[in-house]
Amino acid sequence: MYKTYGYAASDARSPLAPFEFERRALREYDVQIDVMYCGVCHSDLHQARNEWSNSIYPVVPGHEIVGRVKEVGPGVTRYKVGDLVGVGCLVDSCRTCASCAEGLEQYCENGWVGTYNGADRVTGEITYGGYSTKIVVDEAFVLRIPDNLDPAAAAPLLCAGITTYSPLRTWGAGPGKKVGVIGLGGLGHMGVKLASAMGAHVVLFTTSPSKIEDAKRLGAHEVVISKDPEQMRAHLNSFDFLLNTVAAQHDLNPFIELLKRDGTMTLVGAPEHDHPSPQVFGLIMKRRRIAGSLIGGIAETQEMLDFCGKHGITSDIETIPMQKINEAYSRMLKSDVKYRFVIDLDSLRQ
Amino acid sequence: MYKTYGYAASDARSPLAPFEFERRALREYDVQIDVMYCGVCHSDLHQARNEWSNSIYPVVPGHEIVGRVKEVGPGVTRYKVGDLVGVGCLVDSCRTCASCAEGLEQYCENGWVGTYNGADRVTGEITYGGYSTKIVVDEAFVLRIPDNLDPAAAAPLLCAGITTYSPLRTWGAGPGKKVGVIGLGGLGHMGVKLASAMGAHVVLFTTSPSKIEDAKRLGAHEVVISKDPEQMRAHLNSFDFLLNTVAAQHDLNPFIELLKRDGTMTLVGAPEHDHPSPQVFGLIMKRRRIAGSLIGGIAETQEMLDFCGKHGITSDIETIPMQKINEAYSRMLKSDVKYRFVIDLDSLRQ
Repeated sequence: MYKTYGYAASDARSPLAPFEFERRALREYDVQIDVMYCGVCHSDLHQARNEWSNSIYPVVPGHEIVGRVKEVGPGVTRYKVGDLVGVGCLVDSCRTCASCAEGLEQYCENGWVGTYNGADRVTGEITYGGYSTKIVVDEAFVLRIPDNLDPAAAAPLLCAGITTYSPLRTWGAGPGKKVGVIGLGGLGHMGVKLASAMGAHVVLFTTSPSKIEDAKRLGAHEVVISKDPEQMRAHLNSFDFLLNTVAAQHDLNPFIELLKRDGTMTLVGAPEHDHPSPQVFGLIMKRRRIAGSLIGGIAETQEMLDFCGKHGITSDIETIPMQKINEAYSRMLKSDVKYRFVIDLDSLRQ
Repeated sequence: MYKTYGYAASDARSPLAPFEFERRALREYDVQIDVMYCGVCHSDLHQARNEWSNSIYPVVPGHEIVGRVKEVGPGVTRYKVGDLVGVGCLVDSCRTCASCAEGLEQYCENGWVGTYNGADRVTGEITYGGYSTKIVVDEAFVLRIPDNLDPAAAAPLLCAGITTYSPLRTWGAGPGKKVGVIGLGGLGHMGVKLASAMGAHVVLFTTSPSKIEDAKRLGAHEVVISKDPEQMRAHLNSFDFLLNTVAAQHDLNPFIELLKRDGTMTLVGAPEHDHPSPQVFGLIMKRRRIAGSLIGGIAETQEMLDFCGKHGITSDIETIPMQKINEAYSRMLKSDVKYRFVIDLDSLRQ
């Protein structure tokens, strides 16, 4: 067992506070990781505050984890002590269903195990995430972080990175394709960087003129102020793919109209209240599609990390000590971060 | 010019009434057709009553037309006098855009010309549909009706047939695929026949237990009463494709939950008021998709007719004289037809 220092929500209304616990003793294929950095995802806040009504307290959030391997179980072959590794949203799945067999563990038909607020498949114990100094994970769910990437800035790749990379790949973003990214936050800024590195023509949609310059710096070829009907009209029927990263409730119709025939808009943000109903005519008239997409499987997450290593892509981050997490949540709710908070876990080590 | 007897709506509130007009003199590639039968589509009623707010009166509805070629223009090569032919929803398109070049005239980027309530590309005159004794159409938009099919029962293939055939083909209905058809009306009953002939495992969803036997007779392997949560639960996460033919506003979520990972539900019915908003989580959790689909192009419509010829598929119809059209509209609104009214135009010939 490994004594671990973390931060936890003890109920839906309390701020996060220090919490000590023990990580499990290593099983045969387990890797024990000293957590160096953990990104702060909006899902962390949703689950700390039970906004998805499925939280089991205490909740130790965090699923954008980068650290170094400290110890390995007897059966471990993929990692050795000292390796720079990552852990994302999943720490286990059934490994036998059709989706797992295809490497799509995020769609595991028997339910995957979340890095936090999940139930361990062996003991049933609730999992604790990366807002903590140590974590123990089966090597099959551990990722390799390319050495050339800044470990702190690589942490958000484990959720924000794969959540945008996977749909961009699934719907064929690449040379000759016109791809829109809606919203410039933690997910959106990764979407812009990745789609641009894939070779697509990238248009960023934002409601804030203040974000235009930043979007271009991140790789957007064009920026559209989505509240301006004239700017929107100029892009009617022209997009192969739209990656909608906006989790706040909004009208989907003006974006659907921007898709060309057979184009898809994929939603990766889950709003607390559903978006207003999209018009069926907008779909029928050009055989357009709306889809959803959830993070990515382990194999695709490694592919994304390797892609980021090759292209030198990381997240734009602001590093904070663990003790500032509640302030960071307040600022995140005001979109006052460019573009991801990352916790430096050295702040908790004793 | 050809003296033609038809029925028209003179405004949004009046019943359809006799209307005499002249069809244009043949242009080089025109075919003049003596209309034998014309199916009655729900769109006819929508447009007769200006429910889509784009009707130009008088409206002569009808886009499920079967008849015999009576005369051909000097440039016509595909048809000769006496041929059994059909005309569907389109009588022209720009013929130059990317969609037209791909044979997807129904998605013409410059706007296709509807068989009625459309504007002729040469004269700008409003087109009149198949509730009439004669029609003149460019041969490029005329279809060949297989000789082995009953001409009256083949008429609904030109809209109800292709509207269901095209999405079934686009989303790969066939052997080894589980396909659901939602709603057993004019469209739904064609969807069941076609999906079944394509070799898919077909499940029909209806709210009416009275339709179970009929659905099985038409080719459904299973019938689910969609109001029964237990029956619905038995099919969770199991469908490759759902063809939703219901034009009335309804909750999409219980059907989305029936799709397996990467499954698509395609809407072919356009409700007067949008369906309640679908839940984004339902899409995200299994990378599911919602799409729309509009009729089909000319090449695919011919392919569908040939497929129906080969498999002996026509619509289940009730033939009426033109004079009963207003009564037929009332009965159609009560779903009191199995499954398509077809007008016998001999009733108007003098």
